[in-house]
Amino acid sequence: QGILERLDAGEIVIGDGGFVFALEKRGYVKAGPWTPEATVEHPEAVRQLHREFLRAGSNVLQTFTFYASEDKLENRGNYVAEKISCQKVNEAACDIAREVANEGDALVAGGVSQTPSYLSCKDKAEVKAAFRKQLDVFMKKNVDFLIAEYFEHVEEAVWAVEVLKESGKPVAATMCIGPEGDMHGVPPGQCAVQLVKAGASIVGVNCHFDPDTSLETVKLMKEGLQAAKLKAHLMSQPLAFHTPDCGKQGFIDLPEFPFGLEPRIVTRWDIQKYARKAYDLGVRYIGGCCGFEPYHVRAIAEELGPERGFLPEASEKHGSWGDGLSMHTKPWVRARARKEYWENLKPASGRPYCPSMSKPDGWGVTKGARELMQQKEATSEQQLKELFQKRK
Amino acid sequence: QGILERLDAGEIVIGDGGFVFALEKRGYVKAGPWTPEATVEHPEAVRQLHREFLRAGSNVLQTFTFYASEDKLENRGNYVAEKISCQKVNEAACDIAREVANEGDALVAGGVSQTPSYLSCKDKAEVKAAFRKQLDVFMKKNVDFLIAEYFEHVEEAVWAVEVLKESGKPVAATMCIGPEGDMHGVPPGQCAVQLVKAGASIVGVNCHFDPDTSLETVKLMKEGLQAAKLKAHLMSQPLAFHTPDCGKQGFIDLPEFPFGLEPRIVTRWDIQKYARKAYDLGVRYIGGCCGFEPYHVRAIAEELGPERGFLPEASEKHGSWGDGLSMHTKPWVRARARKEYWENLKPASGRPYCPSMSKPDGWGVTKGARELMQQKEATSEQQLKELFQKRK
Amino acid sequence: QGILERLDAGEIVIGDGGFVFALEKRGYVKAGPWTPEATVEHPEAVRQLHREFLRAGSNVLQTFTFYASEDKLENRGNYVAEKISCQKVNEAACDIAREVANEGDALVAGGVSQTPSYLSCKDKAEVKAAFRKQLDVFMKKNVDFLIAEYFEHVEEAVWAVEVLKESGKPVAATMCIGPEGDMHGVPPGQCAVQLVKAGASIVGVNCHFDPDTSLETVKLMKEGLQAAKLKAHLMSQPLAFHTPDCGKQGFIDLPEFPFGLEPRIVTRWDIQKYARKAYDLGVRYIGGCCGFEPYHVRAIAEELGPERGFLPEASEKHGSWGDGLSMHTKPWVRARARKEYWENLKPASGRPYCPSMSKPDGWGVTKGARELMQQKEATSEQQLKELFQKRK
Amino acid sequence: QGILERLDAGEIVIGDGGFVFALEKRGYVKAGPWTPEATVEHPEAVRQLHREFLRAGSNVLQTFTFYASEDKLENRGNYVAEKISCQKVNEAACDIAREVANEGDALVAGGVSQTPSYLSCKDKAEVKAAFRKQLDVFMKKNVDFLIAEYFEHVEEAVWAVEVLKESGKPVAATMCIGPEGDMHGVPPGQCAVQLVKAGASIVGVNCHFDPDTSLETVKLMKEGLQAAKLKAHLMSQPLAFHTPDCGKQGFIDLPEFPFGLEPRIVTRWDIQKYARKAYDLGVRYIGGCCGFEPYHVRAIAEELGPERGFLPEASEKHGSWGDGLSMHTKPWVRARARKEYWENLKPASGRPYCPSMSKPDGWGVTKGARELMQQKEATSEQQLKELFQKRK
Repeated sequence: QGILERLDAGEIVIGDGGFVFALEKRGYVKAGPWTPEATVEHPEAVRQLHREFLRAGSNVLQTFTFYASEDKLENRGNYVAEKISCQKVNEAACDIAREVANEGDALVAGGVSQTPSYLSCKDKAEVKAAFRKQLDVFMKKNVDFLIAEYFEHVEEAVWAVEVLKESGKPVAATMCIGPEGDMHGVPPGQCAVQLVKAGASIVGVNCHFDPDTSLETVKLMKEGLQAAKLKAHLMSQPLAFHTPDCGKQGFIDLPEFPFGLEPRIVTRWDIQKYARKAYDLGVRYIGGCCGFEPYHVRAIAEELGPERGFLPEASEKHGSWGDGLSMHTKPWVRARARKEYWENLKPASGRPYCPSMSKPDGWGVTKGARELMQQKEATSEQQLKELFQKRK
Repeated sequence: QGILERLDAGEIVIGDGGFVFALEKRGYVKAGPWTPEATVEHPEAVRQLHREFLRAGSNVLQTFTFYASEDKLENRGNYVAEKISCQKVNEAACDIAREVANEGDALVAGGVSQTPSYLSCKDKAEVKAAFRKQLDVFMKKNVDFLIAEYFEHVEEAVWAVEVLKESGKPVAATMCIGPEGDMHGVPPGQCAVQLVKAGASIVGVNCHFDPDTSLETVKLMKEGLQAAKLKAHLMSQPLAFHTPDCGKQGFIDLPEFPFGLEPRIVTRWDIQKYARKAYDLGVRYIGGCCGFEPYHVRAIAEELGPERGFLPEASEKHGSWGDGLSMHTKPWVRARARKEYWENLKPASGRPYCPSMSKPDGWGVTKGARELMQQKEATSEQQLKELFQKRK
Repeated sequence: QGILERLDAGEIVIGDGGFVFALEKRGYVKAGPWTPEATVEHPEAVRQLHREFLRAGSNVLQTFTFYASEDKLENRGNYVAEKISCQKVNEAACDIAREVANEGDALVAGGVSQTPSYLSCKDKAEVKAAFRKQLDVFMKKNVDFLIAEYFEHVEEAVWAVEVLKESGKPVAATMCIGPEGDMHGVPPGQCAVQLVKAGASIVGVNCHFDPDTSLETVKLMKEGLQAAKLKAHLMSQPLAFHTPDCGKQGFIDLPEFPFGLEPRIVTRWDIQKYARKAYDLGVRYIGGCCGFEPYHVRAIAEELGPERGFLPEASEKHGSWGDGLSMHTKPWVRARARKEYWENLKPASGRPYCPSMSKPDGWGVTKGARELMQQKEATSEQQLKELFQKRK
Repeated sequence: QGILERLDAGEIVIGDGGFVFALEKRGYVKAGPWTPEATVEHPEAVRQLHREFLRAGSNVLQTFTFYASEDKLENRGNYVAEKISCQKVNEAACDIAREVANEGDALVAGGVSQTPSYLSCKDKAEVKAAFRKQLDVFMKKNVDFLIAEYFEHVEEAVWAVEVLKESGKPVAATMCIGPEGDMHGVPPGQCAVQLVKAGASIVGVNCHFDPDTSLETVKLMKEGLQAAKLKAHLMSQPLAFHTPDCGKQGFIDLPEFPFGLEPRIVTRWDIQKYARKAYDLGVRYIGGCCGFEPYHVRAIAEELGPERGFLPEASEKHGSWGDGLSMHTKPWVRARARKEYWENLKPASGRPYCPSMSKPDGWGVTKGARELMQQKEATSEQQLKELFQKRK
């Protein structure tokens, strides 16, 4: 059954987690470029991560094609650019996802994300051409449906949806925005309306914000659609980091991004709360993005086990709500084998010299730098350097 | 070259990380039993984790045989006990480790850990028999050397070393103790002396405490050996969690163990500091235990790159000290691409409603319960239940 | 010169601090009732606190008549109700304030605050009668101007202003509300407009919220007045506690109120930032409320010393920005004798087992309880008890 | 009844609180010099603070003669040195304390503290002469007993006790040290022994450390005395700040000293725990030092009310364990009117951007600077400046 059949039937669809962050920690993706050439270089590593998400309960395996547009691979100074073509990266991603999807009954979704072409003010035709190049691979490999994800500007997201719709396949679209809306100031409700009008059947958010903030944004999208009398399925794939302190552009601006985020990592119990809250809000495509590891996806599947009627395969290796501790020799550890315990725990950081919140960076430079970027002017190294100097 | 040749030559040997915690998050190990039947059930998952550690710089791959003694597998009510024999689990562990070790130039170490037989007061012969059963497999599979690790009582650790020494192979021994010493109150210095006298060529600590605390313990061991005019190589494989607040028995007693430890996870920079500190203390076998992911091991290899003269394979996907960020579009993110930034960052938890430290559990019951356990009396369910009730 | 002459001339007027909290800690006011019978029982203690504020730079001494309306004194089960009449308490308050004001050149302001009569739905005439009774004393004692302060409902505040205006003296009006507005949902801008239309020459906020939040509210008031083309002087007398986590009704609902607020107490440097921010916003009557001690008032006077051209008397015993430390024997303590140090310090709590924020109480009961209170229905003990039970 | 009669009879004697900190906040003492010329300049302010402590339950009023030795007044560049003689400051202090003591049944204790003469290596005779000068005033004014307090070196404390003993009056001696002992490394137990041998009838600690740490030190003193078979009454007058993070020299080295200590201020409930713990340890002279306000002293008196059989006068304005809240209109505030609530509250700081602990200053310079100071060499401005530069 396809994605829309499932959602139309009222099923809960569980997404997967964050590939670039998980594979960075495993040694296959470089932070900074964040490009997915591992699909060609180390397919076994990508395959294994897909498999773990599948076991954990994912109903959709997204092709590992994040930042795999041709312009991005080039722009990021990808050292494999010559050796490994954009096409090969995308094709390998499709093959691996399909291979693992067949080990269960998951769907394969081909994904595109925002492009440097848009940010550097290339025209609509050129930006669309970048998406179409990836789409060609997705069609050749016959993915089950398509996702336009990680867009900061609704204008570009709409262009992506328009291209993906040419395929005739179902299209989902998620933006990496918070309640304040996109980078041009378009509020979430209006973003959702534009995406649905462009052809998306599923809309929502991914990345950049924590589960709570992301659900706030999805709520605003839902309200926007209701006001416009439009219908679409809702989707949510947030970070697995607590980020109550981030500003409009999300966790990128936090001083801890990307190498000091550990104390912010959410627990499985945080995810169970998120899954319940998302469900209650009417979201039926529930997954995660950066920071989401297989056990976080399992937590979604376990929280919504009663609604779905079954548990994921990986739950054979997991006692719900800490039940596996009931055999411990220490009575006070056994006493943790219950829902109330984990639900109410306020976990300590073990870092008494660290604060609980940070001021996002970019508050000094931001104003000037953002203006530059928002005007999409060429921001030369020198200009940026000067801006940064001023900040001191 | 064998482990002792390397250490005797003054080389730095990098250990691997924590299998039970990493594989629990990936869906292949159950928290509570913590047993390694995945070597038989899901060898590809175990193999992939070994491979990631190898790529990250590990010079030793430990067989995934933690808690794989026969009595433990039975004691933990292992549902595979009948289907999968202790021997098969251990044999598969050896085969997988060797297969991956051959992809590089790593050594394979066969490991044994503390047994329920000892805790339930079986006699020396019976406890030794349990170790010997695992040793038989290690000999058959011809591992390169042996590790007795995760012992809370030096008496049992000595027995393990005595058995492992029968093999003629080099033996390393690490205890999961802190500066207060073993569970019978034997101080670290004395533990080290006993282990070396029993035949261990390498001694140190693993698990239960964070890097800083673990190095304090190793320092005490070093001083004990010096006072006794004994020589041995030093080894350290701590947690990758900040645990300044734990008591004598380590992180098990922290309220966050094992499902709420996320905010305590150490960063790669914390590990670089640890690696440097360990090196300065004279530790030359430097690795990790629970919580250590491949990127933590890579951090050891990168910190000690200048001393070793090379970087691990996985560093192709890592810019030292955040260097990969130097191409970021935002100037304030680019400004993070330097050592001073990450060295001085005090990362926030994103959890303003949580404290930074916890009181270890067991403070209410402990006294009675510990006495019971330390007397190694049969602690019946009922007794423990009563003790726990009193605590409330 | 009167209060309006000063403000009209562009002078900065410094208010005083919080009497009930300061005198509670000194042993003269009871937390719970918070009534000011100390003016009769222990005039020397009230006098001394006035004197300290005067020395610290206060240009206005408010009569200690908070909660001194007749209905309040009765309602709070004041054990002195029979012995000490409402009139005596108010008269003594005026006498003490005037006596100390004459030691400098401060003005005396007579103050009224919200009444139980209003909360229990007495009619307008009855509520006004309560204010008039206090006003009679203020007229007899010839205070310099009048303040209606600590009102949660703008309706009652307007009634108070109308009564005070009968006197012909200048009237200031401050509400204890945050950016969300009054308890009936009237937004701050609208509150300000109503108060000015009723006759207040000075409007703003006092109590219930920290300096930052309070200035946000004053900003909304300022914008409301501008939109309505009304003119008034702005006034701000916030808490001296950090309360970023409080809800609509302010610090009363925080679990720490009133006996665990210590970790939230603001430093003198926080107050200097507040004074500067208030000044930049156009506020010219700048003081404090609960938690403000004399040294906090001194910090206002010192921060705005350059604008005012003089320092308060108490600055003879204070080196600006820690200058008094420059003679310390330890170099690292001497190194603290500078502005940059204190401006940037992030002071630690010394409480590693405590969080940095709390969830306000009343989230369980609130909905029901607030509705009851907002409907101004008689909230019987039994009803409240039941509500509280439900919350568990 | 004299101090020894009371203590010998098993009575609990409650000390007073911290004058220099309280009067600094009230505007009468300058931080840095910390000298008590206010006894002459503003006797009414000193008198009022004495009175508040008396009302709160203090059985002893200490003359406000801290740092009032002649050499200190001169050394601190006291601008009143010419106008106000050392003798006048001390005499006025005695007169004020006696006047207020007579309002109740409190004792007056004359106090001396460490001198710059000792630190600058003057000889024993010269240091003793400084103490004797103050003692002459105490004898003339006939104080009830004498206290040598705030000594970092037991050698100087012993000299002080020897001088004070010449008077024939009972002598108490407290050092401002922690469990690590005095600045020359003499452990607390040995300090206590030396002080008792010199003639002190009461020994203990004051200032520099929080209640918990101070009681640890007193415990070590008690054990030292027991081992030496000496008898003395125990006394404890700690800070009212949480300082788990301070090093050997206490809170002076904390980055927050002295103008950012607010988040560390202890609650009345913390003090109740301290009073109970002190009592259980056998301490019978229980008071406080810097940070202790009258309500903290009241908390001692209330906690030990059952043992003493009465409450202090100020308890007329205080409901034990929050009882005064029982009349509040909000049920969730009324719910705070109970012991369990306040006993278990973990109060939030309201400062999510601040840590819970600090690294003490002086870690960079300390080594060199401390050596210099400990050698009591003349530490010239230039030397210290250079040391500080090195620290950067």
